Amino acid sequence: MSYDLIVIGSGPGGYVAAIRASQLGLKTAIVEKESLGGICLNWGCIPTKALLKSAQVFEYINHAADYGITINGEGAVNFDAVVKRSRGVADGMSKGVQFLMKKNKIDVIMGFGKLKGKGVVEVKAEDGKTQDISAKHIILATGGRSRELPNLKQDGKKIIGYRQAMALPKQPKSLVVVGSGAIGIEFAYFYNAIGTQVTVVEFLPNVVPLEDEEVSKQLERSLKKQGINIMTNSTVESVDTSGDLCKVSVKTAKGTEVLEAEIVLSAVGIATNIEGIGLEEVGVKTDKGKVLVDEFYRTNVEGVYAIGDIVMGQALAHVASAEGITCVEKIAGHHPEPINYNNIPGCTYCSPEVASVGYTEKAAKEAGYEIKVGKFPFSASGKASAAGAKDGFVKLIFDAKYGEFLGAHMIGFNVTEMIAECVVARKLETTGMEIIKSVHPHPTMSEAIMEAAAAAYGEVIHI
Amino acid sequence: MSYDLIVIGSGPGGYVAAIRASQLGLKTAIVEKESLGGICLNWGCIPTKALLKSAQVFEYINHAADYGITINGEGAVNFDAVVKRSRGVADGMSKGVQFLMKKNKIDVIMGFGKLKGKGVVEVKAEDGKTQDISAKHIILATGGRSRELPNLKQDGKKIIGYRQAMALPKQPKSLVVVGSGAIGIEFAYFYNAIGTQVTVVEFLPNVVPLEDEEVSKQLERSLKKQGINIMTNSTVESVDTSGDLCKVSVKTAKGTEVLEAEIVLSAVGIATNIEGIGLEEVGVKTDKGKVLVDEFYRTNVEGVYAIGDIVMGQALAHVASAEGITCVEKIAGHHPEPINYNNIPGCTYCSPEVASVGYTEKAAKEAGYEIKVGKFPFSASGKASAAGAKDGFVKLIFDAKYGEFLGAHMIGFNVTEMIAECVVARKLETTGMEIIKSVHPHPTMSEAIMEAAAAAYGEVIHI
Repeated sequence: MSYDLIVIGSGPGGYVAAIRASQLGLKTAIVEKESLGGICLNWGCIPTKALLKSAQVFEYINHAADYGITINGEGAVNFDAVVKRSRGVADGMSKGVQFLMKKNKIDVIMGFGKLKGKGVVEVKAEDGKTQDISAKHIILATGGRSRELPNLKQDGKKIIGYRQAMALPKQPKSLVVVGSGAIGIEFAYFYNAIGTQVTVVEFLPNVVPLEDEEVSKQLERSLKKQGINIMTNSTVESVDTSGDLCKVSVKTAKGTEVLEAEIVLSAVGIATNIEGIGLEEVGVKTDKGKVLVDEFYRTNVEGVYAIGDIVMGQALAHVASAEGITCVEKIAGHHPEPINYNNIPGCTYCSPEVASVGYTEKAAKEAGYEIKVGKFPFSASGKASAAGAKDGFVKLIFDAKYGEFLGAHMIGFNVTEMIAECVVARKLETTGMEIIKSVHPHPTMSEAIMEAAAAAYGEVIHI
Repeated sequence: MSYDLIVIGSGPGGYVAAIRASQLGLKTAIVEKESLGGICLNWGCIPTKALLKSAQVFEYINHAADYGITINGEGAVNFDAVVKRSRGVADGMSKGVQFLMKKNKIDVIMGFGKLKGKGVVEVKAEDGKTQDISAKHIILATGGRSRELPNLKQDGKKIIGYRQAMALPKQPKSLVVVGSGAIGIEFAYFYNAIGTQVTVVEFLPNVVPLEDEEVSKQLERSLKKQGINIMTNSTVESVDTSGDLCKVSVKTAKGTEVLEAEIVLSAVGIATNIEGIGLEEVGVKTDKGKVLVDEFYRTNVEGVYAIGDIVMGQALAHVASAEGITCVEKIAGHHPEPINYNNIPGCTYCSPEVASVGYTEKAAKEAGYEIKVGKFPFSASGKASAAGAKDGFVKLIFDAKYGEFLGAHMIGFNVTEMIAECVVARKLETTGMEIIKSVHPHPTMSEAIMEAAAAAYGEVIHI
């Protein structure tokens, strides 16, 4: 078969690119080796959010009395049911992608796709049979997987990655999470909330180390208060899995400490899936595990493009989708604007949630900006009080000279739903004054954004 | 005592105006007859949100099994505790305003304030003693109260207003709510959720009649599914309170029906508090219960201003606050922009929540716009699936010719926190394309805004 476009990989980069291509009149096929929707839908964003929702409901039950609700008896986590629900949500979403492929008349070809000469993709099905398909344009969107460290080899049972972590056969009594990025912290929060004893080991001085330092510090306090043991400035040297419990040797500033835990979750970032997909054969250039592309995702080989985790930029689902759309619009002869990678929001869905976009305070200073910072604590928000969610704050950073909105950093209930306002505002090159003068509805947590902007300008009302 | 500014009424219009005045160097006093924070903090926005949060927690408990949580036993609403929590939240916020007044060096004068000649306010304390205070500028911010219909006279026991509704001595078994604006619907939702049998009677063809019709229809379906009896195109003719239960005669299209209920809640709008505050004596002009003001809230009498519920414009807390700030900034010699009353968000905090800003579809057509409408259902949102919140949608309205963002209408979980994005976007005169190209974080409900914009432009991905 011959197509206008073949997309290899059906994660949020690939399937979105395929749909946009179909909308723009390109005859499109998508190649997928496992499940439609890729990691995001099947083993990432979506099923973890289902788990986290269960944890949240469990927390409401445990704190029902705070809201005037009495429970005669007590709540218990049915771990199997929680995992089953999560798997069900993932399956439903994957079926949704199947429907979207059909609706958009995109051919789905199951198997492992590999570049094979100009305009040709070889697809090897599970049964070993291969077929060649061809297209004018080929987008590589093969995504990533859990990165393995030499001293933290994943055996899938005792030392695991995120995939196993979201479908364990039973709830572990104890868990060591190595790495405190979004994935590590979300699992740490989830398991701790449902009663597992959790330790987080982070190499850097702060948890969620990419976030603004004030957010990291606040999150660390909140998580500790919830009972999570947090060890920063610490490295896992080795894990002895020979006994019933893993013995985890952690090097800290004070020396080496040995932790015991049923399971060790390695969450130290992702590795890109660029092996065996024909890059070398076709001559596609890579650097440090990433495919090299220009601002429209063209590789050095004509007709071959790459998007998502395998190219530079944040390895996030929404980035992959945006890249897929931009790439395809360019292929179709449109004139899309290149993506501004400094306006990509990042979210961590623990409780309190963390969300941010743009420069951290430190990064803004390092970039040479003179800055104005405005901060508004949820403890001063009426809605937060009513919702019993007073933890956290909104922190906005503006350029002192021209008022440019440099960055937004939030920690608190539901802030992952609040950050989009800042993304749009930054996209529209707003100044703080325009945020202050946008009438936010009362009472909402979103007022904290308006108030934080006002704080930066010395006009805050409620603190 | 002589001030630069006296504010009469300490609701979200008054106390915010006073704080902003103090920031701008005006020596300010605020006069309050009852509790700092006014209705909003004490008997409106804030305590109702606390009640609604309790209802939400109770619903999570009732549906815990859906999330994989087992409860051996069952949850029960401790009505006293729910009300007590709500009162506690309100009291805390009122104390917060007290703190803000002190911090901003604003004199709080307790008593009933009344204009008395040029620049003079007479304050009558609870004990009947009066004092005169004077100022160059006087802002009237006396707010509103529950409107009474002749055939629905409130006795405070069986026929009540919102004030009584949020602090009843015991949970009623049955309740008839008259009027289905935000206040009526929030109480209907709350009482139904905690087990009261609720009927809503609405004079107009749709509930939340100011909202876009599609939203109203969807809300009606959702509320009916929750067990609320909804009677639209219906009028309460009379209520007989002589027996144990109220007998409520409701005129419907099919004739008159008599409902029985323990309590009838009248939620048919608000009346303004403009009586006895000296308007006539000083010659301040009014029309249909509203004080007449210009775009900077100046009345016809020099030095007298009015903001909030007592002037034209939406009777909402955030409007009052914005008016207070604008009024004071003008007094202080700044050059504030007049408020754009077409960019004021409105929220109803039932479940699913309702939020909107700008033109409804009908209003946009009536205003002569040729429109493009984009709608995205939460059933197609990954985050909504994970959160178990697939009800509802986002609907965006654009001008077909120039792309102007005319209106946003949302119904679903948490949409009251999502509408601010649309307010800011409209403030910044965005087009749909800029929303589509703002990378929203995945997975969030806020992606539905991006997708709805994309739907309007034929670029939606997930439906």
